Amino acid sequence: MEVIPGRPDLNTRTMLKMLEEARMRQAQIAIFPEMCIPGYLIGDTWEQQAFLRDCERHGRIITEASHDLCVLFGNVGIDWDKTGDDGRVRKYNAFFIAQNGKLHGDENFPYPFRIKTLQPNYREFDDTRHFYSLRKLAPELGKSVEDMLQPVHMNIAGESVNLGCILCEDGWSEDYSVKTIAAVHQNGPVHLFVNISASPFTLGKNNKRNRVFSKQVESTSVPLIYVNNVGTQNNGKTVYTFDGFSTVYNGKGEIIDYCQPFTQTLKCIDLDLTQKGEDHSPVTVPDDRGMDSVYQALNYGIDKFARSIGIEKVVIGASGGIDSAVSAALYTKVLGPENILLVNMPSIYNSPTTKDLAAKLAQNLSCQYTVMPIQESVDYTIKQINDTPVVNLKNGRQFNLTVTPFAAENIQARDRSSRVLAGLAAAFGGGFVCNANKSEMTVGYSTLYGDLGGFLAALADLWKHQVYALAGYLNEHIYQREVIPQKTIDIVPSAELSFDQAVEQGKGDPIFYPYHDYLFHAFMEDWNRSAPEDILDWYRQGVLEEKIGCQPGLTKQLFPSAREFIADLERWWKLYTGMAVAKRIQAPPVLAVSRRAYGFDHREAQNGLLNTARYFELKEQLLNTI
Amino acid sequence: MEVIPGRPDLNTRTMLKMLEEARMRQAQIAIFPEMCIPGYLIGDTWEQQAFLRDCERHGRIITEASHDLCVLFGNVGIDWDKTGDDGRVRKYNAFFIAQNGKLHGDENFPYPFRIKTLQPNYREFDDTRHFYSLRKLAPELGKSVEDMLQPVHMNIAGESVNLGCILCEDGWSEDYSVKTIAAVHQNGPVHLFVNISASPFTLGKNNKRNRVFSKQVESTSVPLIYVNNVGTQNNGKTVYTFDGFSTVYNGKGEIIDYCQPFTQTLKCIDLDLTQKGEDHSPVTVPDDRGMDSVYQALNYGIDKFARSIGIEKVVIGASGGIDSAVSAALYTKVLGPENILLVNMPSIYNSPTTKDLAAKLAQNLSCQYTVMPIQESVDYTIKQINDTPVVNLKNGRQFNLTVTPFAAENIQARDRSSRVLAGLAAAFGGGFVCNANKSEMTVGYSTLYGDLGGFLAALADLWKHQVYALAGYLNEHIYQREVIPQKTIDIVPSAELSFDQAVEQGKGDPIFYPYHDYLFHAFMEDWNRSAPEDILDWYRQGVLEEKIGCQPGLTKQLFPSAREFIADLERWWKLYTGMAVAKRIQAPPVLAVSRRAYGFDHREAQNGLLNTARYFELKEQLLNTI
Repeated sequence: MEVIPGRPDLNTRTMLKMLEEARMRQAQIAIFPEMCIPGYLIGDTWEQQAFLRDCERHGRIITEASHDLCVLFGNVGIDWDKTGDDGRVRKYNAFFIAQNGKLHGDENFPYPFRIKTLQPNYREFDDTRHFYSLRKLAPELGKSVEDMLQPVHMNIAGESVNLGCILCEDGWSEDYSVKTIAAVHQNGPVHLFVNISASPFTLGKNNKRNRVFSKQVESTSVPLIYVNNVGTQNNGKTVYTFDGFSTVYNGKGEIIDYCQPFTQTLKCIDLDLTQKGEDHSPVTVPDDRGMDSVYQALNYGIDKFARSIGIEKVVIGASGGIDSAVSAALYTKVLGPENILLVNMPSIYNSPTTKDLAAKLAQNLSCQYTVMPIQESVDYTIKQINDTPVVNLKNGRQFNLTVTPFAAENIQARDRSSRVLAGLAAAFGGGFVCNANKSEMTVGYSTLYGDLGGFLAALADLWKHQVYALAGYLNEHIYQREVIPQKTIDIVPSAELSFDQAVEQGKGDPIFYPYHDYLFHAFMEDWNRSAPEDILDWYRQGVLEEKIGCQPGLTKQLFPSAREFIADLERWWKLYTGMAVAKRIQAPPVLAVSRRAYGFDHREAQNGLLNTARYFELKEQLLNTI
Repeated sequence: MEVIPGRPDLNTRTMLKMLEEARMRQAQIAIFPEMCIPGYLIGDTWEQQAFLRDCERHGRIITEASHDLCVLFGNVGIDWDKTGDDGRVRKYNAFFIAQNGKLHGDENFPYPFRIKTLQPNYREFDDTRHFYSLRKLAPELGKSVEDMLQPVHMNIAGESVNLGCILCEDGWSEDYSVKTIAAVHQNGPVHLFVNISASPFTLGKNNKRNRVFSKQVESTSVPLIYVNNVGTQNNGKTVYTFDGFSTVYNGKGEIIDYCQPFTQTLKCIDLDLTQKGEDHSPVTVPDDRGMDSVYQALNYGIDKFARSIGIEKVVIGASGGIDSAVSAALYTKVLGPENILLVNMPSIYNSPTTKDLAAKLAQNLSCQYTVMPIQESVDYTIKQINDTPVVNLKNGRQFNLTVTPFAAENIQARDRSSRVLAGLAAAFGGGFVCNANKSEMTVGYSTLYGDLGGFLAALADLWKHQVYALAGYLNEHIYQREVIPQKTIDIVPSAELSFDQAVEQGKGDPIFYPYHDYLFHAFMEDWNRSAPEDILDWYRQGVLEEKIGCQPGLTKQLFPSAREFIADLERWWKLYTGMAVAKRIQAPPVLAVSRRAYGFDHREAQNGLLNTARYFELKEQLLNTI
């Protein structure tokens, strides 16, 4: 089901409707995802007792609707008599089992619901802030976690069925000292495992999930049903899509059925538990590691998120470059060309080539188009700052300030976004978008209140090379024609903010994406983040390209000496940990597709980290030996 | 000591210098704060193994420097052979005890350091994301937490001394099932408790800490030394000051010595443990609940934070209103008038009164001053948008967009900040500041890329009534003259973005601060956050003013009927949970003083939460009965 975060009323309505259909289709068990009543990513709304009472109330409505069938669903479980570690009322991330209008599950458990054992506390997850886990509850009750992991004994259609009721992370116990599924199995027999989840989409995660879950099922020989929600949820800085992709594994660990990703579906499966589902033939699930999955997640995420905040029309600054072109092609597909306004905002630095490309893109998309030059207003601003005297009130002396060429570049960028795009968006009746990609975000190659403005940064979790790949995918598979002009793909990427960035002379960005994309990826996406110390060590050992995954031989080609290699490394590291942090703090929400997007999953401080002692030793060695 | 987050090199240097001095003063024990080598708020830097190795390396330097005296200090404790729940290398928030160049503490413990038992997982804290607590370790080893809480047996100057080594939250066990101090005491005898902390300043927290700690000491009759760091640390969205305020409690729980808040001090105390410090007379500590503490925290925070990111000069937009005046007075005190550029940016809507007040403020502060009118450029923008045709490329038709009066207000605000202030700041060689207060931040009464821009929002954790109180405090106690013109304090607060906000006619903001400040406080600062359901229930019961803390009788006066009361409540709740969230996501870092500042301690999603079912029932009742 699609879960709307923070809306128990709407989610309950969806569930009641689906239950009605399930009943018509004579289902005996209906399974809804984790936290399907409250939603999952709702910030600190858990601290509102009014909201908690509302969740309980809607949970009761679902429980009352459990006549004729057994309903499994996720909700917050509340113990009003106890507190959590923060002194607030005790809350659990809970698995409810309702039948004949009543809750089951308290036969061998202190609550009429089961609770999550393993709470993810990495990436974007925040369970531990709000919920008390079984790992905390067990010692408090003088019991072992494993003893408390009992199956739920139900009677379904006259048959005794023992359910292993687990929540999301409980199925991913590899790194934990508690092995949830094994423990419930030990306390069995278990006839069916049910994992209810609220698991955000990450490129390639389902591929891994199928491997992990199949392996676990094999070790228990008990079928498992995985139920995940669809929709988008966000934690402010980052917007996550949920792909659903609910999956049924038979006792051999084979996938025998699944729901289409990103689609709300009432899927009925006839599962003879005596056969462990092994009478069903295995099916093949779509791979979720390719550009088609990236596109699907972005398309779904833009659609759901924009509409959820009331945005149906957008203004996009079109420079003729690749990022704005991909952005325009994506939004046009989601909102329709009639709701897209492309605007080209040339200054004296913009080439005829890119201006033409912007117009061509708009033609290809059949959207609204306009050109609003910025040169006059940029000149006005520079003149006003240069010509207006400043007085020192201590000594009465007057002086004038001067706009430097670098400052003038930022004035252009801000003029485009804060003046034109923001003004146009209001007049057009919508929002304007941020076209920044992940490579730029990493090192702050963007202007605050300039090209870093917008209501959503839909491309900001894609490295530049992924933006190019997506451009190709859009032309070839989605539009099936050259919507994004080939020339936009071919020209050198450039901000065109000065004559030093003249595309027609092949001049452009200071970032060399085929190398820096991979270097930046190592800084921010490696599970154990790579720091300059690691980079230098790999460089010294001649394994850098292999380690970071870029094309072999690239560093030799780019940096004739260690000195140049080091200067480049230090330049970008300083930006990544310095000015870029300041910019990201004020950046728009990022639409996540990767294993780590900027925002709540990349917690950072404006500390301007310097390098380690070992780094300086390695640097010294390298500079002295060459 | 002042801890620089993310800089083991600098922190180690400070510690070595202080150790030198301690040795000269013949100290036998030197105590440094929690995480004094790595710093505490460093985001996900803990995921860089290079950084972890660097922390270990610097920890060894301190250990080696522990000849002639016993050194207690905080650092990350690493078990390279184990993993945490996230699969990364196992890290502990650890208490190190060094003497004669060696680590002590593994006599009755699995590591040569002690680890934090209680990890705060509320407010801005993030311990659980990175560190494995004793509560997790104990069951893994098949032990109880309480058994593992053993004192450290040391020999100091020939005497056997048992130290109770605890970390920060371990001293605040009220809401936890584990009582750390009691458990160590039980495993005693303990001669001295040492609590090393990294505890950010919160208005009134020390007052509470002294009550909580004194009570615990009383129950054990063992003296306790509390050592906290000074400095600023941030987690991106929020900047925290650390006030130090290290305190010595004798066995009766009396305070016998303390360090001045916000000051790095090597404090020597002669503590005869056989006397339990009871031979010292109790001293009175400064109260930390008043405006003087607010001022001290802001002054210290601005100073340390601005300099840490390389900002020594600032541009401040001075409107003649209260927020910009207080901001200017604060920054001038920190950076000196020569580094402050005040700029007044009038449009046709700005009154002579406020223009004069801005000039007067600048005169009073003796800073740099200039006036940059915005009317011409605002007119240019409106004309450009209105006059530039847009073409629909599907049918070739042209049309024109129109800037509405409301959109024109935002154009003014953005023109001031993104065009003038940002441009001026670059020319002046510094940053520009955000003058937003907490009341505005709550409901998004500000323009994104407009008055919500800046490198720091120093007033954004103060309600409007606190801003006024701070204005009075600055004039009376800090400048001891009328620096902020009395008229600025007296006029109606107004954004002056249209003739509907004409201050000279007494027209101004739609927020009535004497009531809304308290309503908004209930939404966001109440430990159990109040929602409209609670507000309506209190209103119905006639206890609202008492519950939210505003002046009695105010709601009757403001809202003649329930209908008007409800309309007002719904208006602001919708903004607080809606548009204001979008704005806060892109707002500058907030300097924290209260128990909850915006940013990482106010986790939120763009969900546009609606109200609870119970709210609608109460509303229905109220509207029908009146």
